[in-house]
Amino acid sequence: MRATRGTLAFVLACSAITLAAPPTAPLRQPSATAIVGATIVDGTGGAPIADGAIVISGGRIAAIGARSAVTIPAGATQIDGHGRWVIPGMIDTNVHLSLYGGQNDRYESMVRYQPRFDDIVVEGAQIDLSYGITTVRDSYGALVPLVHGRDAIARGDKTGARILAAGNILGWSGPYSFSFSRVMGQLTLFQEQMNDFIAQGGGEELMEMTPAELRVAINAYMDRGPDFLKFGGTSHFSEPTFIGFSPESQKVIVDEGHRRGKFVETHSTSVEGLRVSIAAGIDGIQHPELLDGRELPDDLVATIKQRGLVCSMLVSTITGPAWERHLKAKADAEKKIADAEKETRGVPHEKTTAERRKEATDTGADLEARRKNAQKLIKAGALVTPGTDSYWAAAPELTRTPKPQDQDHGMGTILAIEGLVELGMTPMQAIVAGTHNGAVAARGDKNFGTLEAGKLADLVVLTADPLADIHHIRDVVIVMKEGRQIDRTRLPEVRVLSVAPRTPAGK
Amino acid sequence: MRATRGTLAFVLACSAITLAAPPTAPLRQPSATAIVGATIVDGTGGAPIADGAIVISGGRIAAIGARSAVTIPAGATQIDGHGRWVIPGMIDTNVHLSLYGGQNDRYESMVRYQPRFDDIVVEGAQIDLSYGITTVRDSYGALVPLVHGRDAIARGDKTGARILAAGNILGWSGPYSFSFSRVMGQLTLFQEQMNDFIAQGGGEELMEMTPAELRVAINAYMDRGPDFLKFGGTSHFSEPTFIGFSPESQKVIVDEGHRRGKFVETHSTSVEGLRVSIAAGIDGIQHPELLDGRELPDDLVATIKQRGLVCSMLVSTITGPAWERHLKAKADAEKKIADAEKETRGVPHEKTTAERRKEATDTGADLEARRKNAQKLIKAGALVTPGTDSYWAAAPELTRTPKPQDQDHGMGTILAIEGLVELGMTPMQAIVAGTHNGAVAARGDKNFGTLEAGKLADLVVLTADPLADIHHIRDVVIVMKEGRQIDRTRLPEVRVLSVAPRTPAGK
Amino acid sequence: MRATRGTLAFVLACSAITLAAPPTAPLRQPSATAIVGATIVDGTGGAPIADGAIVISGGRIAAIGARSAVTIPAGATQIDGHGRWVIPGMIDTNVHLSLYGGQNDRYESMVRYQPRFDDIVVEGAQIDLSYGITTVRDSYGALVPLVHGRDAIARGDKTGARILAAGNILGWSGPYSFSFSRVMGQLTLFQEQMNDFIAQGGGEELMEMTPAELRVAINAYMDRGPDFLKFGGTSHFSEPTFIGFSPESQKVIVDEGHRRGKFVETHSTSVEGLRVSIAAGIDGIQHPELLDGRELPDDLVATIKQRGLVCSMLVSTITGPAWERHLKAKADAEKKIADAEKETRGVPHEKTTAERRKEATDTGADLEARRKNAQKLIKAGALVTPGTDSYWAAAPELTRTPKPQDQDHGMGTILAIEGLVELGMTPMQAIVAGTHNGAVAARGDKNFGTLEAGKLADLVVLTADPLADIHHIRDVVIVMKEGRQIDRTRLPEVRVLSVAPRTPAGK
Amino acid sequence: MRATRGTLAFVLACSAITLAAPPTAPLRQPSATAIVGATIVDGTGGAPIADGAIVISGGRIAAIGARSAVTIPAGATQIDGHGRWVIPGMIDTNVHLSLYGGQNDRYESMVRYQPRFDDIVVEGAQIDLSYGITTVRDSYGALVPLVHGRDAIARGDKTGARILAAGNILGWSGPYSFSFSRVMGQLTLFQEQMNDFIAQGGGEELMEMTPAELRVAINAYMDRGPDFLKFGGTSHFSEPTFIGFSPESQKVIVDEGHRRGKFVETHSTSVEGLRVSIAAGIDGIQHPELLDGRELPDDLVATIKQRGLVCSMLVSTITGPAWERHLKAKADAEKKIADAEKETRGVPHEKTTAERRKEATDTGADLEARRKNAQKLIKAGALVTPGTDSYWAAAPELTRTPKPQDQDHGMGTILAIEGLVELGMTPMQAIVAGTHNGAVAARGDKNFGTLEAGKLADLVVLTADPLADIHHIRDVVIVMKEGRQIDRTRLPEVRVLSVAPRTPAGK
Repeated sequence: MRATRGTLAFVLACSAITLAAPPTAPLRQPSATAIVGATIVDGTGGAPIADGAIVISGGRIAAIGARSAVTIPAGATQIDGHGRWVIPGMIDTNVHLSLYGGQNDRYESMVRYQPRFDDIVVEGAQIDLSYGITTVRDSYGALVPLVHGRDAIARGDKTGARILAAGNILGWSGPYSFSFSRVMGQLTLFQEQMNDFIAQGGGEELMEMTPAELRVAINAYMDRGPDFLKFGGTSHFSEPTFIGFSPESQKVIVDEGHRRGKFVETHSTSVEGLRVSIAAGIDGIQHPELLDGRELPDDLVATIKQRGLVCSMLVSTITGPAWERHLKAKADAEKKIADAEKETRGVPHEKTTAERRKEATDTGADLEARRKNAQKLIKAGALVTPGTDSYWAAAPELTRTPKPQDQDHGMGTILAIEGLVELGMTPMQAIVAGTHNGAVAARGDKNFGTLEAGKLADLVVLTADPLADIHHIRDVVIVMKEGRQIDRTRLPEVRVLSVAPRTPAGK
Repeated sequence: MRATRGTLAFVLACSAITLAAPPTAPLRQPSATAIVGATIVDGTGGAPIADGAIVISGGRIAAIGARSAVTIPAGATQIDGHGRWVIPGMIDTNVHLSLYGGQNDRYESMVRYQPRFDDIVVEGAQIDLSYGITTVRDSYGALVPLVHGRDAIARGDKTGARILAAGNILGWSGPYSFSFSRVMGQLTLFQEQMNDFIAQGGGEELMEMTPAELRVAINAYMDRGPDFLKFGGTSHFSEPTFIGFSPESQKVIVDEGHRRGKFVETHSTSVEGLRVSIAAGIDGIQHPELLDGRELPDDLVATIKQRGLVCSMLVSTITGPAWERHLKAKADAEKKIADAEKETRGVPHEKTTAERRKEATDTGADLEARRKNAQKLIKAGALVTPGTDSYWAAAPELTRTPKPQDQDHGMGTILAIEGLVELGMTPMQAIVAGTHNGAVAARGDKNFGTLEAGKLADLVVLTADPLADIHHIRDVVIVMKEGRQIDRTRLPEVRVLSVAPRTPAGK
Repeated sequence: MRATRGTLAFVLACSAITLAAPPTAPLRQPSATAIVGATIVDGTGGAPIADGAIVISGGRIAAIGARSAVTIPAGATQIDGHGRWVIPGMIDTNVHLSLYGGQNDRYESMVRYQPRFDDIVVEGAQIDLSYGITTVRDSYGALVPLVHGRDAIARGDKTGARILAAGNILGWSGPYSFSFSRVMGQLTLFQEQMNDFIAQGGGEELMEMTPAELRVAINAYMDRGPDFLKFGGTSHFSEPTFIGFSPESQKVIVDEGHRRGKFVETHSTSVEGLRVSIAAGIDGIQHPELLDGRELPDDLVATIKQRGLVCSMLVSTITGPAWERHLKAKADAEKKIADAEKETRGVPHEKTTAERRKEATDTGADLEARRKNAQKLIKAGALVTPGTDSYWAAAPELTRTPKPQDQDHGMGTILAIEGLVELGMTPMQAIVAGTHNGAVAARGDKNFGTLEAGKLADLVVLTADPLADIHHIRDVVIVMKEGRQIDRTRLPEVRVLSVAPRTPAGK
Repeated sequence: MRATRGTLAFVLACSAITLAAPPTAPLRQPSATAIVGATIVDGTGGAPIADGAIVISGGRIAAIGARSAVTIPAGATQIDGHGRWVIPGMIDTNVHLSLYGGQNDRYESMVRYQPRFDDIVVEGAQIDLSYGITTVRDSYGALVPLVHGRDAIARGDKTGARILAAGNILGWSGPYSFSFSRVMGQLTLFQEQMNDFIAQGGGEELMEMTPAELRVAINAYMDRGPDFLKFGGTSHFSEPTFIGFSPESQKVIVDEGHRRGKFVETHSTSVEGLRVSIAAGIDGIQHPELLDGRELPDDLVATIKQRGLVCSMLVSTITGPAWERHLKAKADAEKKIADAEKETRGVPHEKTTAERRKEATDTGADLEARRKNAQKLIKAGALVTPGTDSYWAAAPELTRTPKPQDQDHGMGTILAIEGLVELGMTPMQAIVAGTHNGAVAARGDKNFGTLEAGKLADLVVLTADPLADIHHIRDVVIVMKEGRQIDRTRLPEVRVLSVAPRTPAGK
């Protein structure tokens, strides 16, 4: 087929990175760097090391321990760590760095900024990095620009958090599809092209396939370069939640992923749907606490714990400011319901199913169930990570009402790690969840996620003790990724969808 | 809870039968009736009996066979059958006698005629009977009026085809639900009440349940009086088709149904969805030929055949006038596609998935796949029945464009039996499918479906040979149900939604 | 054209009155009746007559005055009026007794109860009468059932308030038209038929006509029997308000109406639109206070006063409970606006026109402007009447949320007369507005509207002094229409759309 | 108020011209140019001048006439005109160079290319110029970029057709308003800002004003720099068409426009609406032939002729390829209607008003009425011009189906001039309409529109005789504007919304 302008528009986006402005010039690295005198919280969950020392060389941790036990190489650049705390670079296991749809102002943003997809991915990864988040797993989005951004950062052409990308959620189609957003009716060409661009051959048609056909399709999808696989174990929509693939088909996805070394996770938001996915052999679950208002049964909790399945939870939407908003909205709704029941005009009728559902929605019953499930998983000792679903809403100049910061890149992750404490973890557990556990989900725990000799020097230096108060993870003074100290004031280098905060990052 | 007017409106409908005009006065039955001299096609598939005789007494067939072998009791009323053919009363395994939703003019019909639900069910059953259809299985609809109509007919208070009813399709909700019709957004009170009235506690919430909870709910549903169970093995909607219950839950439905002696069938319209349902142990499949444009795999065909699963097929929508309309529409669509491809203005682009889907829809690819699957099942010798989905569209005075007659009560079934021949059956096979096989699906083959001594005298007398030309099943001269000769000219007794045909029934 | 079922449905409605249950049997009237000893507020605005007497004979007032000055005929039935007050029967100059459209539950009500249009008109007129409202002007609705109801009541076949009907608002079409309700897109046959049924040949097409054509059309419309004419001097919708007919065309409507003795009024809700209509020579204005948020200019007020134009005002929507709801909603909206302005996230932007409009809407700016205009007209001494727009909302069993009573038949008018005092009238002025002035609008002031010798005996007996407190117009003990005492406990005789109040009428 | 990003986005667009790439370098003009030997059709309607000569100097025509009567200055650059024809530069009195709204793909184009508004205006003007159209009147659009483009071209910073702009249609609001496109419901911030950006203070609120307020608003609008005024004498939408301003308000608009030397025109598409506008003293009418399916009355035609009102007609939509499409669509629709009438199923009903309207729409009754009105105006000798409404549809990469070329910039005007012959003009009359008459509408007939000594040298050289066949206006070999020969191969210089035609311009 001859190249066409329509097609080209998308292809061009792919090559934008190489055409873009030169990256922040890589600083010449000194032979070694040492952070000396800080308290080290190494992400393993072990006791903090007071007056510690970390020697970094060649991007990795050469030595770490009590200062007294560590030899600082001659000529090393020393960073004074007295009165500081060092934690590993943080990890978010569920972000969305690319644009992937939306209605109204988000649709306008998609239309306007589709030619700048590559820039946007990097922008998100840079904001993350500026908060001390050194690794993110992108669990749904546009694979092509995600791979561009991931590779540009990996090569050092761009600064930013390390990216792992799933691309599409297998079995669903793009942003303007029925499976993703219950969109029906005639679409524009742009919308249809965007659907295909996101689906990348891993869309709705997968659910129609026989297992044999599916096996071929999954491999073709993996050829496009995702780091891990995520599939729609259930429908995206609820009321009601359907199951997305037969048990046999789910096994095919998991098995093929495993054959090629991929972590495989599911979006399964009904009790029975989740059970089927777990039986298929998945490695992790996105938002296992979200079960359409149902309680996660004990047997499922036990299985999740026992198999060590990664539980990437939407913590920042059920704690902190989000929870405060819920409590207020609930009180308002309950008052309104009570008032309506006092109304004496009209003919009384038995409450319909829809009326009961609406009351549950209005009072946030689903949020409450999610919070309880999250607490249950934490209490059971499941392997929990913060997975925020942080995403880009509308472009700043196109929106009237910015979304709450709970799911902003960077800040969302901070809120989530803090929220883990609200849900019952100790600060130490929350830090392990937000560092080490994320590395497990990223299949990177041999290389990062903890501060140990031999590992990549992804770390954050804080000015106050996060074990005393988890909110001190906001008090970032240094972010280092692979041994390179990041100039946070320059991030993001290009703002397409973000606005500079009126106060410094994390405050 | 105190009775309310809103609730009352629905309850009143339940008692309408007893309030309605007195039924056609039951004729005093003679001691015996004999049809003498006709050719008998008895529905077993055996050779036709020329110059036969059937003796009917007490509603049942006392004797049947060659005239020479049958003793006509003294005093029996004799019906001269010379130059006539007798076949069993016909059976449709998939009809919808009640109103169950729709948009626009069908919605208006629902709103206006909801208080007359009971009358409407009987109206449909009477039209069926007037065509010689003596038994119908209602596979989706409003259980309450269906049970009323069924029981009134069974008691002899009303004339009409014998009704077996499933009520709701388990797992889906009513006509204005997402699961049934992809309806979203705020509903009116009427719509919500109608949803609950149809769902009868067997709606969307079933899919959210654990197997243990589901077991309880299924039994509660059966307490409401359905004759058989039908569940949503997949979603009602396609593009894409989701799976409706986990394998374990499907087994619960089947097992509980079987425990109480119910035939259990599924609506499963994807290859993998159907496979899961078959594995759960179902007894029958509604429209197994409908697989969202996919071919029914050979192994599934073999299993269906081997297990004797009832294949209730939407024959009249893929044969006869419907097929002729398809061929015309396809030719038009292909011309339009070809013309569009010649268009030279604009910027060419690769066809999107949606564009390819639209072309498939416009050219009726799904219809063609359905027809091939139907032929495949017939060729394989599966137990096939005509199941028309015949339904009420809008009330005559509310509609601009009546629906085609392919799915009219009565005529739809006739077209379906005829269509089986178009799909590859012999006329004899088609008659067996439309009589005996339907009785199997109705779990009534010991009592009806064939003309054999001891069975209920449900039969149709024709003026021309249906084995020579299947269309002669339209040439009805006598309909007898349970030995009682029906005055077809009086049916339906009350017209709510039907209009008198301008030509006699069946012509 | 032969009669059709679709057409018949509407025709049948026309003959329903004659088929309906027999009217309340006319009581044999005594030769005369006298109310003796009550204080009489005669509707002329003159001083109340203490210890008065009213002699009624042949449906009319034979004599009225101080008891001392009135001869009570021998044999007259005497009603003891001590401690009672008598006022003329009240008049509402803007009601809607028929169904005329609506969405959602009101649409369902229209669909279900269209066959009962005649009953519904009478139901409304009976509720009005039960509150002491003896005459109503129906300014928009279905002319055919309105004429049926009007004539049945006039003939004495039915009890009810005297009806005068305009039928359609000339230049607009029916309930599902663009001109009436901004409805666009494909309609159902029912909706289209309903549009024509309401338009009665006086719809949108009138605005396309030349003056000569319009002259013919207006006369054809008058041949259908309306009592007065109302035309769309502006569009029904606002933001923006368009003008409905050219000045020349408006003159044609007014002139033709006057040639046949009709009162002609307008719906004109913009300053310039109203000016054009007044210049055309109209007799009255519906809701002159409603000018899309604008102040009624002084010169228009002066003209209205000078020409004695009837100002039928939507009083009950800008006073009493409606005004209290407004004040609460305004406070809530202002708080919300203030909160939003404190929000510091996002990019600030200049308020758009739409945002400013929305704030005005949310804070009820239009209501406030309407109230000010109403006060201005009252202060200027314009001829004001209560015209409530009282209408039927959804049928009780079809609605979740009954509309507020401000525009209920009966109660709405009471609230409106009370509201006139809130707007600045004395109770005496309010009574004159609600009786005599309405009669002027009904071109009936020679026959009713005041209690004077020779006039029809339409009157209401109260148990407390309405001049002391206008709310005592609720304390009705006797309603008499044309000399006949009404059994209020039996009204309405048939409830289709109303529910019995839980407390007695007016309380 | 401090500058905001939202506001800035629009402001930035304003300055884009000055930032853009340098314009085509102005060629050094020779002292004089002469076109020698061509046949001259000078736009006055006078006899063509065979073997003529035109001397151009300083951008103007220094001399013109038979070659024998014209002195060619020494040193003049000579252009050999043998076998060529020269006509004045063509003029379109109704184009839309800016983006102004639309739905679906046009909405996407608006969102994506709003930052490039200035480029788009110039792009359109350059395409026009490449076809020999040297002047265009933009009768609706975004005033800010139109003024930018107009001024950049006038200054010589940009090449392009001379632009005169009206900006908004007074009384209507922007593209997402009710008055312009019947849009209702919540808008995005972008849509609201776009509405205000187009309305420029001359929107819907004008219709609410008193004449005194309107006078102020009109002057404020004129301060923003439009060249002429256009107002909504009626609503944009039809069925039904409302009147937009009272007669007094229309006079205010006209009078204030005239006070400042502006040509004032109307959009008035009903008989009575147009009559009111004409009475207000307007100078011209856009699409006077468009009267919602009605015939233009004789008296209006006479008035239009007598007052010399400019009749800018949508010729290319009722002639040529558009008319051929109409005839085909009409035949198809008539067949479909006839087939439907043969349908015997269902209950017959009297045709509703909506059904009759739909049939009229389907058979193109409005187009036929428009064509008849256009012919009537031409026959009456009205001052007719081609006014095409040529506009930008969706960006090429965003659309599936390009709009027909009848309203493409450039080609649309050519088709319109050709169409005038189809409507009854001689080729000579059509050329006068497309040149001289347009200059009258542009208030520029003293400076351009005809080829006469002293006028600007706007001219087109053709290779074949347009009087023999009007289609030869496509055979352009030279376009000269103000004496400068245009390099048509370079236009448009930047393509944002256009695609290069696959065949040369005009073919």
